[in-house]
Amino acid sequence: MARVVVDVMLKPEILDPQGQAISRKLPQMGFEGIGAVRQGKRFELELEGEADEEALDRVRKIAETLLANPVIENFEVRVL
Amino acid sequence: MARVVVDVMLKPEILDPQGQAISRKLPQMGFEGIGAVRQGKRFELELEGEADEEALDRVRKIAETLLANPVIENFEVRVL
Repeated sequence: MARVVVDVMLKPEILDPQGQAISRKLPQMGFEGIGAVRQGKRFELELEGEADEEALDRVRKIAETLLANPVIENFEVRVL
Repeated sequence: MARVVVDVMLKPEILDPQGQAISRKLPQMGFEGIGAVRQGKRFELELEGEADEEALDRVRKIAETLLANPVIENFEVRVL
């Protein structure tokens, strides 16, 4: 049984208000030295079989159709 | 300028209804061979300086106090 991670982040040109809110809050909390913050999603999928190319292709299709919105988000699939 | 990732996932013993909803939806969409799904958060932080131990310690404190809820979530800090 393999585990695969799908990281989903907003495209760089898309405004990320959640990340901005965190970034603005940090100095008020005494944390200096952090610039921009971006917030995204991380999914961990357990495969019933091996993480071969066919399985990873399936995960990419799942990411495209269910986990990410390809209009505004990029995603990356990798084996854990 | 360095980039650091903070991955935040629910602890294994905490129920993840979002992940379960995805996992249940997959067979209906024609995707077989996927077991459990867990959904978490991913943060990308830009450091103004280098990602040395001091900076990573600061990021760990930020994760603990602002990005994750240590009662129900685990987090992991790594340099991109």
